[in-house]
Amino acid sequence: MTSSPPFNPPTFSDIQSAAQRLEGKAVLTPLLESPLLNERIGGRLLIKAEPLQRTGSFKFRGAYNRISRLNAEQIERGVVAFSSGNHAQGVAAAAQAMGTPATIVMPTNAPAIKLDNTRAWGAEVVLYDRYREDRDMLARDIAEQRGATLVPPYDHPLIIAGQGTVGLEIARQAKAAGAELDALLSPCGGGGLISGCALALAELAPGAEVFAVEPEGFDDTARSLAAGSRQHAIEGAASFCDALLAKTPGELTFSINQTLLAGGLAVSDDEVAQAMAAALIYLKLVAEPGGATALAAALSGKYDCRGKTVAVIVSGGNVDPATFAEALGGSSSP
Amino acid sequence: MTSSPPFNPPTFSDIQSAAQRLEGKAVLTPLLESPLLNERIGGRLLIKAEPLQRTGSFKFRGAYNRISRLNAEQIERGVVAFSSGNHAQGVAAAAQAMGTPATIVMPTNAPAIKLDNTRAWGAEVVLYDRYREDRDMLARDIAEQRGATLVPPYDHPLIIAGQGTVGLEIARQAKAAGAELDALLSPCGGGGLISGCALALAELAPGAEVFAVEPEGFDDTARSLAAGSRQHAIEGAASFCDALLAKTPGELTFSINQTLLAGGLAVSDDEVAQAMAAALIYLKLVAEPGGATALAAALSGKYDCRGKTVAVIVSGGNVDPATFAEALGGSSSP
Repeated sequence: MTSSPPFNPPTFSDIQSAAQRLEGKAVLTPLLESPLLNERIGGRLLIKAEPLQRTGSFKFRGAYNRISRLNAEQIERGVVAFSSGNHAQGVAAAAQAMGTPATIVMPTNAPAIKLDNTRAWGAEVVLYDRYREDRDMLARDIAEQRGATLVPPYDHPLIIAGQGTVGLEIARQAKAAGAELDALLSPCGGGGLISGCALALAELAPGAEVFAVEPEGFDDTARSLAAGSRQHAIEGAASFCDALLAKTPGELTFSINQTLLAGGLAVSDDEVAQAMAAALIYLKLVAEPGGATALAAALSGKYDCRGKTVAVIVSGGNVDPATFAEALGGSSSP
Repeated sequence: MTSSPPFNPPTFSDIQSAAQRLEGKAVLTPLLESPLLNERIGGRLLIKAEPLQRTGSFKFRGAYNRISRLNAEQIERGVVAFSSGNHAQGVAAAAQAMGTPATIVMPTNAPAIKLDNTRAWGAEVVLYDRYREDRDMLARDIAEQRGATLVPPYDHPLIIAGQGTVGLEIARQAKAAGAELDALLSPCGGGGLISGCALALAELAPGAEVFAVEPEGFDDTARSLAAGSRQHAIEGAASFCDALLAKTPGELTFSINQTLLAGGLAVSDDEVAQAMAAALIYLKLVAEPGGATALAAALSGKYDCRGKTVAVIVSGGNVDPATFAEALGGSSSP
């Protein structure tokens, strides 16, 4: 795959504009720190708590940044998105805030909490079979029929700029805490969050190395970075990190990540479950599996935090109570 | 019991002084809001997230406010406290911050997370049998032997003023959110938190009614308020709200609460478990059983929030993963 990206990448100033639009709309989520966790790790972890974001994940940021730029006619015709659940809720809530109808194409096996809440934010949900149907095609058809605007999950400059406000806030909050960042670890699916954050840190904390953390088997960004071209997830791979099952990096996101990222790491489901338990014990934060991969890399030693100051994004907390309980029960004591 | 309290109650200015001392030491915890939860309730809930406080509960506030006033000789001799676990961690962390040794008398059946973390904060833990030994006596003996200062869990003006900073922050954060409070619901054990918050709101939000929320059988404050004198918890009562098993209101705290509280409410363990699940689903916040009683009152309808703006304190999140998983599994769908 050597086609050029469909858009030009956003700039730091696009992230600043996104931050202005999001002020008072998105939650300025806290950068949490646990002295006991730091002691255990032998380093300093600053944890960006995006489960506390509106809709329970960072996805509201990009969705609102995109939808708030639609013109009056587009607002009237509505928006369409496809998503396993966090982008779905982000788009639904942003659409509700902007007064535009939203239709979301979601897999039948998405967590119940994600399906329920997408509907609760007022969106119409169209279900598809993850293993048999092409969600892109379905969403594009609906958008065409209705004259609605497709809001892509990551491969769009306004989406990336919106997610990049996470990085902007991390840099400012770390500075306020007297911390100089050695690294940033971020969960990575299609790469919207991490590419936006990498753009923000390149400007505000250029000394920080940025690492993508993915579930084992779905470490397509890690392998793409190593290979120098976009690679696919491993055929037949499985993980309970339902938010991070993208099959290949985005074109635009990868073009940014290839330039700005230090590398990629892969974590096992068991390491993720242990990170979810640690988030409960040390941070009192509910992390969903896909939201806890970066924390898993820090706690498992996949990324060695000893002697370092490391920002870690917990990107979402939309997990069914039963799945959460199972993760707590099944993981070895953290 | 008609003896007069051992101290004069703190004033609003004592709470302001405590806030100044705590600045940069305690976390300014967020006031969370979930539009979906508001929709479900038919009112507006503003949730003070004290699980995100240093040591995982509000208790650090009072402990630090007390310990930071000790003189050099007292600092050298150390502090002693008795606690089922949250005050223990608060005292241990505050003592560590002030460089004074801490000895904490804790029940053998305290949650493991509370025992482990009290030790992790550098305190010496002395265990006692909750059903056979007198913890007050044990703590007093140790304090006397060592010349150490006893840091009581609630019945002291500096403790109450420290916990009152929760109310100070709620009033300011609610105002910043454009909300005028109709009521404040707070978990209540010995009454330190709610008496401090009531003093703060009497000054900053005098229109807000303040309600204590206790576990069924341990609703000694509710019954004391109704009777006009200090009553005891019901003999043989049991609850998984380990933080709220105080047998009777404090003398000083009750003298304040009798004047300022609108009343008390009692919630069942099942209602509390449902509130813990709701905190996961809507807020992504880990609440321990005792920390979730006020939220349980709001969600169960024990306090009718319809059409009202209600501040709810979630006072702590120190819960063992297994207990948390069990609460999620055992509660009916929230």
